[in-house]
Amino acid sequence: MSTHTKVAVQDSPAPENGIAYRERLAALNVAPLWDVLKGLVPTEPRAKSRPHNWQWAQMRERLIESGSVVSAEEAERRVLMLGNPGMDGLPYATDTMYAGLQLILPGEIARAHRHTQSALRFVLEGVGGYTSVDGIRTEMHRGDFIVTPAWTWHDHGNDGDGPVMWLDGLDLPLVSFLRAGFREEYGAATQFPRRGESDQVLLRYSDALLPLESTHAGASSPIFNYPYARTREVLDRLARHSDIDSCHGVNVRYANPLTGSWAMPTIAASMRLIPRGYTTEFFQSVEGTVLVGVEGATSVEIEGAGRFDIAANDVFAVPGWSRWRMSAGASEDSVLFAYSDRPVFEKLGLYREKRG
Amino acid sequence: MSTHTKVAVQDSPAPENGIAYRERLAALNVAPLWDVLKGLVPTEPRAKSRPHNWQWAQMRERLIESGSVVSAEEAERRVLMLGNPGMDGLPYATDTMYAGLQLILPGEIARAHRHTQSALRFVLEGVGGYTSVDGIRTEMHRGDFIVTPAWTWHDHGNDGDGPVMWLDGLDLPLVSFLRAGFREEYGAATQFPRRGESDQVLLRYSDALLPLESTHAGASSPIFNYPYARTREVLDRLARHSDIDSCHGVNVRYANPLTGSWAMPTIAASMRLIPRGYTTEFFQSVEGTVLVGVEGATSVEIEGAGRFDIAANDVFAVPGWSRWRMSAGASEDSVLFAYSDRPVFEKLGLYREKRG
Amino acid sequence: MSTHTKVAVQDSPAPENGIAYRERLAALNVAPLWDVLKGLVPTEPRAKSRPHNWQWAQMRERLIESGSVVSAEEAERRVLMLGNPGMDGLPYATDTMYAGLQLILPGEIARAHRHTQSALRFVLEGVGGYTSVDGIRTEMHRGDFIVTPAWTWHDHGNDGDGPVMWLDGLDLPLVSFLRAGFREEYGAATQFPRRGESDQVLLRYSDALLPLESTHAGASSPIFNYPYARTREVLDRLARHSDIDSCHGVNVRYANPLTGSWAMPTIAASMRLIPRGYTTEFFQSVEGTVLVGVEGATSVEIEGAGRFDIAANDVFAVPGWSRWRMSAGASEDSVLFAYSDRPVFEKLGLYREKRG
Amino acid sequence: MSTHTKVAVQDSPAPENGIAYRERLAALNVAPLWDVLKGLVPTEPRAKSRPHNWQWAQMRERLIESGSVVSAEEAERRVLMLGNPGMDGLPYATDTMYAGLQLILPGEIARAHRHTQSALRFVLEGVGGYTSVDGIRTEMHRGDFIVTPAWTWHDHGNDGDGPVMWLDGLDLPLVSFLRAGFREEYGAATQFPRRGESDQVLLRYSDALLPLESTHAGASSPIFNYPYARTREVLDRLARHSDIDSCHGVNVRYANPLTGSWAMPTIAASMRLIPRGYTTEFFQSVEGTVLVGVEGATSVEIEGAGRFDIAANDVFAVPGWSRWRMSAGASEDSVLFAYSDRPVFEKLGLYREKRG
Repeated sequence: MSTHTKVAVQDSPAPENGIAYRERLAALNVAPLWDVLKGLVPTEPRAKSRPHNWQWAQMRERLIESGSVVSAEEAERRVLMLGNPGMDGLPYATDTMYAGLQLILPGEIARAHRHTQSALRFVLEGVGGYTSVDGIRTEMHRGDFIVTPAWTWHDHGNDGDGPVMWLDGLDLPLVSFLRAGFREEYGAATQFPRRGESDQVLLRYSDALLPLESTHAGASSPIFNYPYARTREVLDRLARHSDIDSCHGVNVRYANPLTGSWAMPTIAASMRLIPRGYTTEFFQSVEGTVLVGVEGATSVEIEGAGRFDIAANDVFAVPGWSRWRMSAGASEDSVLFAYSDRPVFEKLGLYREKRG
Repeated sequence: MSTHTKVAVQDSPAPENGIAYRERLAALNVAPLWDVLKGLVPTEPRAKSRPHNWQWAQMRERLIESGSVVSAEEAERRVLMLGNPGMDGLPYATDTMYAGLQLILPGEIARAHRHTQSALRFVLEGVGGYTSVDGIRTEMHRGDFIVTPAWTWHDHGNDGDGPVMWLDGLDLPLVSFLRAGFREEYGAATQFPRRGESDQVLLRYSDALLPLESTHAGASSPIFNYPYARTREVLDRLARHSDIDSCHGVNVRYANPLTGSWAMPTIAASMRLIPRGYTTEFFQSVEGTVLVGVEGATSVEIEGAGRFDIAANDVFAVPGWSRWRMSAGASEDSVLFAYSDRPVFEKLGLYREKRG
Repeated sequence: MSTHTKVAVQDSPAPENGIAYRERLAALNVAPLWDVLKGLVPTEPRAKSRPHNWQWAQMRERLIESGSVVSAEEAERRVLMLGNPGMDGLPYATDTMYAGLQLILPGEIARAHRHTQSALRFVLEGVGGYTSVDGIRTEMHRGDFIVTPAWTWHDHGNDGDGPVMWLDGLDLPLVSFLRAGFREEYGAATQFPRRGESDQVLLRYSDALLPLESTHAGASSPIFNYPYARTREVLDRLARHSDIDSCHGVNVRYANPLTGSWAMPTIAASMRLIPRGYTTEFFQSVEGTVLVGVEGATSVEIEGAGRFDIAANDVFAVPGWSRWRMSAGASEDSVLFAYSDRPVFEKLGLYREKRG
Repeated sequence: MSTHTKVAVQDSPAPENGIAYRERLAALNVAPLWDVLKGLVPTEPRAKSRPHNWQWAQMRERLIESGSVVSAEEAERRVLMLGNPGMDGLPYATDTMYAGLQLILPGEIARAHRHTQSALRFVLEGVGGYTSVDGIRTEMHRGDFIVTPAWTWHDHGNDGDGPVMWLDGLDLPLVSFLRAGFREEYGAATQFPRRGESDQVLLRYSDALLPLESTHAGASSPIFNYPYARTREVLDRLARHSDIDSCHGVNVRYANPLTGSWAMPTIAASMRLIPRGYTTEFFQSVEGTVLVGVEGATSVEIEGAGRFDIAANDVFAVPGWSRWRMSAGASEDSVLFAYSDRPVFEKLGLYREKRG
């Protein structure tokens, strides 16, 4: 064989120039790696997305306006998607995380469907909202972290007399990239209710006191509403009694009590409290992170991109492998909700971080 | 609060028309979900990539030609990337899998580097090629399946007297999407050799007879060359003695002996033998698959896209969620190598398949 | 070989009688299986231990008396071991579980040591007791469930002005059987205290709100005191809102929040509330269980052995594979603490149960 | 409460002497821990079993003799149990491992049953023996390691014309201690055969080439016969090419290819080759080990107990936490089969070892 192929090498016509060769390649749907190797296999990742702050003051106005543009019934989900200015028109907040702002007006229903994308809701404003997951309903209060696991039926509604608004966080970019998206309509606006309320679910799995026999299936937490009142109280007590993490401040991560892992299989969600006057050390990790201001004012410094002031309900994109740190104002502790795709990196052996 | 927000709703100006509203949104980097919901959250996935066969007859000619276009030293890796015609110029064989064809001429060295992308080599032609992984060298023979795990040093060379060619399979689209790519140069063309040869590694972990104390780290298999001679013999004996899988024919998957899982944390690799005259049942799964003809002629039917004839060393893209089946010719068994991103879907809870 | 061995068979002298043959065997330290097969490999397990109730009224008297028999310093641990009447003098409450009653008088210290046996404390009476585990101290109140994980330093003391008494539960029979027991003395009566109190540990890991970075090592829960006040409140709310388990009543199991598994690697601990007037269905499992009355009066029926009345602080042995059920009195809910070796059976693939 | 209990302490009568107090305790089935603490919770484990060698020369004679004492049908299993001289008449080879020697004469059948004890067979002598596991039959050759997983139907027979003898290894002491033994008779002497032979099973799971879809259930390996011919060849090649483990010599452990773990959930089985003239370093671990001579002569030194010469088919007990080392003779490599309860210690967090 070696003789034959050696001849082949000698016989191959010397390319007049690289352009003609590349054209011959293109005609066959191939291309030379050596033209693009450094970009395809970089020495360090560089996110396409950019640090960006969607200010609630502006967002709220447009979101309220959407209520007169389209009904929840027409829209199925009346959501403004946050499209990072670096993402070339893709409605992604970072390279890998989706964020949207949803509005439900009094009496409206966002009808039941399910999909393979995992979704979280983080409640921003309003009273009377609710989400039902597989027939169990939970009330939505500001700061609550609510999970709708992949392929569970869910609908939303508003029994109050004012608008209810929240942030939707989804692993939509991942599921889109993987071409793994499936969706199904329930066939009725709301689900046939199951006995039980979400606070009973919470009770049943809280406090490291679990049921002897659990029938919960799936990789997501059986708890699907982690109320802010409880989270805030824990943060407050940790702030008084615990060591502070130099990069993350006083922090809690929302966990699946049956496994100790993240509450969702593809999304890491957490809450941080930065004590007044405190500045964290720099932190850098491959995950893309979305921050939401909950209390106080936080200054986020992104190395090479400057400082950003995050007020309550602002949504801020921290691109992957950014080097960033947080400062709380002098007079008030700040509280921030965060979600990222860290579990994806961890499960695939790709997670990296640097502290300090 | 409800009073206030109610007023806000009433006060919000009715949009003159949707276009003006959308312009106001765009200025703030947001966009209405309801315009694109059905596409973003589809009822079923639809791959961008299309079924496509890169025929070895044509590929080999261009690959040999590349030897006179660029040297291995200049190129670092002299590879023609297979760019699926549906992928808008991205050098991806399917939506999620990378495939390239690499050439090393006698005496050349593709110098040592490492990266967080996991790579496999599937040897197509030539004698005298070798790959070193973390200082241990393995000879490359046609049909061998060779793993270079994420972040291991690896270089390639050719001690023979004719060209050596193989297919590179990488999780590069995934790592690019996740912005998780890191690369490092070794600083010398070849690595300082460690004691040992890869066939000793194979021996040390073969046959379900493992070492009492193993120091192997990482999620990839300690075996990094699964020789074709062995694989072929197992397929042959299974063909005589075993049930045939109605969708996959006689099959083996390359496994990590220390865990029983796939040989690589992000890529599933397997070999199939379709007995002469046999047609499999239809199979459909979310993974994107790259097939490589090894022996015989295989006809692959993709529902809605027709039939494709796969000869030896042809590389064929099966887009995710295609419905497909295989037939061997009447006179000869066919053997096909396959790799896909199935482990990614499995780990993230997103794997789905349909048989028949 | 077959010819030779055939001759051997023919040559072998017919045994005059079984006794002489068995004597020849005994001289060589062997014995015929066929004499004992049915007993060694039974159709169903039969525990050696018997249902037995150690009544607190009697135990308390003897335990108080022990305070004048020996000092805590002399005794290292001043404990009365509960020896099941079926266990031939072994100080085991069931075939596989150890239970002891410990007394610490005001000002006494049970000095620091550690051992590979895992231990739990269930507090029965007294105010002012404390346990330190690896330098962190927890106060002991009635009904608290306290873990001292394998190979952690621990000491106990009493800062109150009356006796403090609790139940010790250990996997001592298992560790003795396995010959896996190691013990070490600390070298000082009490440990050098670490910063922190156990209620901060509890706080840090409670409520499915876990730390982003946890450095906890080992298979036992990082929480080492599960206070009764909290457990009781959860039971109470579950009793009002939740379905009742037909065999276990309203129940919680003490869990490791980092894994969702049992709080201890070899011992399952749980608390049950049986509503007034309620009788559970029969339950049968291979685990050996120790019950402790906490509130109310419970009647436990063991099939074939009758009924036993369990008052507060009584300790009751349920031998493995017993068929048993519980009834609460007509006027008061009953609460029972339980521990068993169920995790051992589960990890070794030997767990079996029957309900109803 | 403190006042009350303080009074109680003062009121408690001073014990006339310790004997009377202990009698009062005994009447209530309790006993003072402080009398026995050092023994119950020792500083280091001390096995009851003693190093002991059952010499094949003697065992074979008695085993052959058993053929004329009882038929396989009468005996159900015609086995001589090895009872360690330290175990007070219990038929256990070490504190935790059972070993028996089984004889099947030509034409005999040891009828089908199943039990929750896991069993291994290690074939010592004879041609024509077979074992069926869940309807699949395997031929037994000297040196083969055969698994009958917990709760699988199994029968043995002899189609040859001479006696067949093997060693049975079971986790019987563990299952007896845990009171977890269940046994069931099949109701016929032999099982209805399933299609397939064990060498096809071996083929189906060998060489880190596994099936794409496996339906194997249970914690034991799907491979149930690991033939000696293959094991010996691997050892031989490892001896030529691999580093030698200073404590274990050239070694392989029998693994479950689907998990990489031990072939059995409660028993670790392995084979060691000690090159001629080689002496290992001392090794000490908590597991109890049974060694079987396969080839050559091995001298085992147990610290504090002297040297023991192990010839082919001799069965030798190494009690847990012994410090021991092995030497091969000057002229011949020695090969030893070993099994222990190491997986039990590992799963329960109790494994300890010291090397050198």
